[in-house]
Amino acid sequence: MVDDGGFDVAPPAGGTVRDLLRAAPGGPVDLGAIGPRSTPGLPDRLVTGPDRKGWARRQVGLVGAGLARQQEMLFAGAKADPDAGRRVLLVLQAMDCGGKDGTIKRVVGALNPLGVRIRAFGPPTAEELRHHFLWRIRRALPPPGYLGVFNRSHYEDILVPRVQARAPEQVWRPRYAEIEDFERELTAAGVAVVKIFLHISNAEQARRLLARLDDPTRHWKYHPSDVDARARWDDYQTAYAELLGGCGTDAAPWYVVPADRKWYRDWAVAHLLRETFDTLALGYPPADFDIRRERERLVATGQAAKVNGS
Amino acid sequence: MVDDGGFDVAPPAGGTVRDLLRAAPGGPVDLGAIGPRSTPGLPDRLVTGPDRKGWARRQVGLVGAGLARQQEMLFAGAKADPDAGRRVLLVLQAMDCGGKDGTIKRVVGALNPLGVRIRAFGPPTAEELRHHFLWRIRRALPPPGYLGVFNRSHYEDILVPRVQARAPEQVWRPRYAEIEDFERELTAAGVAVVKIFLHISNAEQARRLLARLDDPTRHWKYHPSDVDARARWDDYQTAYAELLGGCGTDAAPWYVVPADRKWYRDWAVAHLLRETFDTLALGYPPADFDIRRERERLVATGQAAKVNGS
Repeated sequence: MVDDGGFDVAPPAGGTVRDLLRAAPGGPVDLGAIGPRSTPGLPDRLVTGPDRKGWARRQVGLVGAGLARQQEMLFAGAKADPDAGRRVLLVLQAMDCGGKDGTIKRVVGALNPLGVRIRAFGPPTAEELRHHFLWRIRRALPPPGYLGVFNRSHYEDILVPRVQARAPEQVWRPRYAEIEDFERELTAAGVAVVKIFLHISNAEQARRLLARLDDPTRHWKYHPSDVDARARWDDYQTAYAELLGGCGTDAAPWYVVPADRKWYRDWAVAHLLRETFDTLALGYPPADFDIRRERERLVATGQAAKVNGS
Repeated sequence: MVDDGGFDVAPPAGGTVRDLLRAAPGGPVDLGAIGPRSTPGLPDRLVTGPDRKGWARRQVGLVGAGLARQQEMLFAGAKADPDAGRRVLLVLQAMDCGGKDGTIKRVVGALNPLGVRIRAFGPPTAEELRHHFLWRIRRALPPPGYLGVFNRSHYEDILVPRVQARAPEQVWRPRYAEIEDFERELTAAGVAVVKIFLHISNAEQARRLLARLDDPTRHWKYHPSDVDARARWDDYQTAYAELLGGCGTDAAPWYVVPADRKWYRDWAVAHLLRETFDTLALGYPPADFDIRRERERLVATGQAAKVNGS
């Protein structure tokens, strides 16, 4: 058994997870220097412990319970002051098999579903293609008070045209600036944006694709185009490296989460969410009614004698 | 400790929960004859056991894990055959403090959030009022492959006008037939509709409202109009009794879930969902590609030597 401090959330070691995993802006991120099996923020004794997976699962549960409380405060605050527009947007990007679905299942699944809006973005539909690439994104933004989760996002509109050569550079290159403007607009409107790239290795992708092929209950997750995309692995890594270094702002930074180890990935994403909610310094809004008077009115409706004795 | 059969889902006693809780159609349901603290489907030894809450929580977790698997099959099936339109819609109705939010948090929270779309309906907005009352409902329907959850619903458009006398009977009465047509249309389009009324007692509502007033972290859930609505308790019960008996069809029946005991409520709702998914007889779709060929293509992309040794 790992000594995990009982039922408390163990703090990350060496700084916040945000600080440890933040992609440095300004130029291409050196993804080759970030080990997909590395575990920043975790002491060695936890990483090598025999119960590391169980430990991480419990920690995600504990962080999730705390986040559920913060979600509630976010929701209550938005009810009291909708114009503030406060909400959180989690953007998940990854190569195929990078673990977006698993992260949502495990981490977002530990939160309160009442306050979550999840949206997956596939290849644009015919209708979506008739609009600006941000049209479908804007329509999917979470309302104030909610945590929105984007399973893929507007970043596909740079990555895919670029790597698949579906559009010339003069189409996708200007999207960098458009996205930066869009995300500045979001943060000004009260949206805390957390952008995460789940970083897996080429070998891990091969393992996971093969596991899908070998399991009839997972064939539905496989598509032959996955192998075609895999053949362009290096091109995608180059495109991601530039994107992660070029589309992060102070208000909407990118985080690179090593993701070959699923248990670490979930732990890190849970903490990134927690630390983001912490920056909002949330609290419950004060009552906008006279508590004593309401108590009297309630008691007057009867059955109240039983109330105190229950 | 209650003997709960280890890690298995304990089957309901005395029939399916659907059979036990189904509201008989044809005339007003006698809500007075259904005890809000009753526990249909549970053997006495479980109801009186000291660990009944822990037992129910574990059972909901087990049922939820099975449902997550069925959700996945529903999703995979819809991906393979979107035209079938198969999806599930859970409609939750209750008096204030009836436990809609808690049910979603506990039961829906045990499922996979990837496949869930939750929508809460408040008083209609100015824009919504300009449309037919089903307009906002249609826009909120889950896509094929998803479980949709309605936190309140189109039924508010009968209940509120009627009880609050906001509209004459010739406005809300025809909505019975419109809703029946609408729900027939849904079921024809592949939607399995599960409508649940969470049935609490007057005294329990008083206790829960008072608990909100006495807890500053729950003031945001309280509104003075809750007491006004409570003063019309009998009118609401009468309206619900007629609605539960009058708006259920074979395809879209109503279930009355005794809800004073939260642990029973969650157990019953979890089983109602499970039994509904069971009726769909879901399975994974077959691969629409050549598995052997894809395996060869994948191995040819390299790194595959590591695959089998991992």
